[in-house]
Amino acid sequence: VTHTLQHLATLVHGTVEGDGDIAVSGINTLEAATAGEISFYGNKRYAKQYEATRAAAVLVDNDMVRRKNLTVIRVRNPHLAFARIAALFHPRPSFPAGISPGAHVDATAQVDATCCIMAGAFVGAGAQLAAHTVLFPGVFVGERARIGSSTVVYNNSTVADRCLVGNHCIVHSGAVVGSDGFGFAFDDAAMAHVKIAQAGIVRVEDDVEIGANACIDRATIGETVIGKGSKIDNLVQVAHNCVVGANSILCAQVGLSGSTTLGQGVVMGGQSGTAGHLHIGDLTKIGAQSGILSDLDAQQTVLGSPSFPLQTFLKAHTLFGKLPELVKELRALRQRVVQLEARQHASQGEIPK
Amino acid sequence: VTHTLQHLATLVHGTVEGDGDIAVSGINTLEAATAGEISFYGNKRYAKQYEATRAAAVLVDNDMVRRKNLTVIRVRNPHLAFARIAALFHPRPSFPAGISPGAHVDATAQVDATCCIMAGAFVGAGAQLAAHTVLFPGVFVGERARIGSSTVVYNNSTVADRCLVGNHCIVHSGAVVGSDGFGFAFDDAAMAHVKIAQAGIVRVEDDVEIGANACIDRATIGETVIGKGSKIDNLVQVAHNCVVGANSILCAQVGLSGSTTLGQGVVMGGQSGTAGHLHIGDLTKIGAQSGILSDLDAQQTVLGSPSFPLQTFLKAHTLFGKLPELVKELRALRQRVVQLEARQHASQGEIPK
Amino acid sequence: VTHTLQHLATLVHGTVEGDGDIAVSGINTLEAATAGEISFYGNKRYAKQYEATRAAAVLVDNDMVRRKNLTVIRVRNPHLAFARIAALFHPRPSFPAGISPGAHVDATAQVDATCCIMAGAFVGAGAQLAAHTVLFPGVFVGERARIGSSTVVYNNSTVADRCLVGNHCIVHSGAVVGSDGFGFAFDDAAMAHVKIAQAGIVRVEDDVEIGANACIDRATIGETVIGKGSKIDNLVQVAHNCVVGANSILCAQVGLSGSTTLGQGVVMGGQSGTAGHLHIGDLTKIGAQSGILSDLDAQQTVLGSPSFPLQTFLKAHTLFGKLPELVKELRALRQRVVQLEARQHASQGEIPK
Repeated sequence: VTHTLQHLATLVHGTVEGDGDIAVSGINTLEAATAGEISFYGNKRYAKQYEATRAAAVLVDNDMVRRKNLTVIRVRNPHLAFARIAALFHPRPSFPAGISPGAHVDATAQVDATCCIMAGAFVGAGAQLAAHTVLFPGVFVGERARIGSSTVVYNNSTVADRCLVGNHCIVHSGAVVGSDGFGFAFDDAAMAHVKIAQAGIVRVEDDVEIGANACIDRATIGETVIGKGSKIDNLVQVAHNCVVGANSILCAQVGLSGSTTLGQGVVMGGQSGTAGHLHIGDLTKIGAQSGILSDLDAQQTVLGSPSFPLQTFLKAHTLFGKLPELVKELRALRQRVVQLEARQHASQGEIPK
Repeated sequence: VTHTLQHLATLVHGTVEGDGDIAVSGINTLEAATAGEISFYGNKRYAKQYEATRAAAVLVDNDMVRRKNLTVIRVRNPHLAFARIAALFHPRPSFPAGISPGAHVDATAQVDATCCIMAGAFVGAGAQLAAHTVLFPGVFVGERARIGSSTVVYNNSTVADRCLVGNHCIVHSGAVVGSDGFGFAFDDAAMAHVKIAQAGIVRVEDDVEIGANACIDRATIGETVIGKGSKIDNLVQVAHNCVVGANSILCAQVGLSGSTTLGQGVVMGGQSGTAGHLHIGDLTKIGAQSGILSDLDAQQTVLGSPSFPLQTFLKAHTLFGKLPELVKELRALRQRVVQLEARQHASQGEIPK
Repeated sequence: VTHTLQHLATLVHGTVEGDGDIAVSGINTLEAATAGEISFYGNKRYAKQYEATRAAAVLVDNDMVRRKNLTVIRVRNPHLAFARIAALFHPRPSFPAGISPGAHVDATAQVDATCCIMAGAFVGAGAQLAAHTVLFPGVFVGERARIGSSTVVYNNSTVADRCLVGNHCIVHSGAVVGSDGFGFAFDDAAMAHVKIAQAGIVRVEDDVEIGANACIDRATIGETVIGKGSKIDNLVQVAHNCVVGANSILCAQVGLSGSTTLGQGVVMGGQSGTAGHLHIGDLTKIGAQSGILSDLDAQQTVLGSPSFPLQTFLKAHTLFGKLPELVKELRALRQRVVQLEARQHASQGEIPK
């Protein structure tokens, strides 16, 4: 399949500068693209590759200069345009309807006839799967769990009993939706932790993606919620009763402690974490490896463990690296004060302390 | 099923203040509880919800004030009382005895007749499962592994060959007990890492809970041990030859390096980690995201990476955030010293340096 | 099976000091070794155990003193010698060739006749498995994936469609090779994250070991690469388009952001992470829990989040802990300056400011 640059430009609301009749057959990086492919240039870190690319055309934003002898498609958001064109060249696969004889589907489960249930998938009693949903091998869907339409659940992942997953979601391999929350009360007479029943569920709204081996614990009571359109990366931990607002981004290995709520569009960098029972406001950005110990307002940017506002952290962290010389400076100054005192004392010997 | 408040109070060794004859049918949060439910109030963060709750009754400790028009059950430990009552309303499910025809159980495995082995579970040669133990779909029990009685192993988790899991344990989805320890010796002649055979096992004692996608590596030689009653959260890493003492708590994404031993009742906050070959004393608490580089005595509380005693860290961390102004203060002081020196020099010009 | 010490010494290019005719039947820790076993002593932390050991012999390097009444085998690298001898006593198991009737192997897959495919493994259309490769139960090999020879893929792990795994690799339980990269472009008109197709693959070269529940994302375009001989521990995250050089070591819970490349022999400590689009030079060592925000040259050693050169970090971190007293010192000095100024003013009242 090929598409002309003019066709692609129209698709992404862009303008061709150069030859719109060129046809391309794929998308590639600046470095690897051949003459039959389109690429994109969105980060000046790759200026050298832009200069050298053999791509037929490059997606650029309004600030980038068109390179000599290169056709560009100018768009407001090259990253988004890249996403649209990549989807054109790499459409999501479709899966044949049907339940593999190697799958184990309980007689009381309701599986839409358009679903694809592969060998080794397990669907428990009373579970419901809506149209066009796909279960890969080794998927476990617990009793009375419900999954919406056009959701893809990759191999060996879990949607535990009673949990809800929406429409158009993607659950990657090994992800666990609905493990027990981590709740215990210590009985000091028995000298033992007593398990607190985790009787709630997880509700994953529409258009959510959950990364490989990520874990979303069920609520103690009520629901742990992953809001519509949120994207969760691999190995993330979401504890019981958390509520993640719509369109939030949790990068790999993030950890949310219990009952913390995130607003909409919150972004958490890799390996960052929060304490429990907090609220993080809309659009707030938490830097990688940060630790959040108290509520954050909307539209903040923070970094550090425990975190500070970004600029405060960066200035302090630079000075942290200079602590040895700052201490030397302090000690030298003290020495000068000692000398000043000595001389003053010598000349003003009569002044009482 | 309903229970009277008086019945519940007796169960949890508490006292009803109000109407003990009220019957409740469940437990819920302060916010969501209806007139037929009991709730609990253990954290003053939820004072507003306590004021507004429509619950039939609330579990409180001795310090909390009984709200007007509200029946309370006063107990020493509301959290523990909540656990007991939640268990009453949400008993652990029971599973029908039997081996699903879709399970693969080796002919030489010894599976008690009361076990429930679901479709897609795999039990290797010579493995032993004691009474009432449950294997969910996709569980892998390796050769000669042994699992005690009344243990629940959720879907897609692993008890690898020869490893031991005790009685009344819970292993959550995707957890791995008995992966190889991470041990290599570098052969600089061959320029290659040489694998060190991981010939030991994991021994999980009774009443342990292991979280989803957590990993417990087998010992190089001997045993990696998870002590009786310890609770391990999701995505935790326990390396080869670690020994976790009884009743310890490892929160999500904790990492223990090889051969580290924890005493009893150690608590490690989320995303914290230790170096290898350390000993952490009984009841010591390690804050979230902390990094431990040396042994810790019993009953310490530490924070930071690398860690300091909690109070030291907190004071230092506050001052870290003020480093920019402290440096300004230092520079201003130096300027004043320069002026002092100049004036002293002007008035005492004759004094030799 | 027993071996004489002389035989073992020859195997590891070492020298017996003592009785080379003693035969041993296994290897064990200094503490647990019996009179029929050999042990090793490579870390002075275990001096007490060395003094007390009942082992028949101990592997030591050139710097260690031979203990009285103990035979030692002196070698250049006791750790490597231990690896060789442990492999002798604990050879990797072999697996019977054949495809279990409980496995699901697509008719178009090419599985070498020497492979062992256990019950519950799944091999997709067009996949290829070379000689002596082993798939444990619950393994998922996607369409057109290829796995080399003598590779062991443990239970419930994933080699997703089109991904490549080399020869003599080990993939531990629950590991995921080929999950989607985490790439989205925000469409602010639609207020939604748009998925960027992840059309590339993962290529795992020969002799790689991938830990339990580790995740290696496929490239957006092109390849994510794990270089020959690299070792990846449990719960590690490698994002799309990363390239890990040969013989690198990623300890547990490490996270690499997208498009970062590592040179050869890089070592990353547990829970450390990097930003995206970075390059880390050959043999560079990144301390546990460190965060890397910019490129690193070869042969560096860094620590901290964000990181500093090791020595800089350690000095600064020590002073961080002393910030409270340093601030006291600063304030005391200021007080002395105030007094100096007052006295100077008193004696030089006439001098204009």
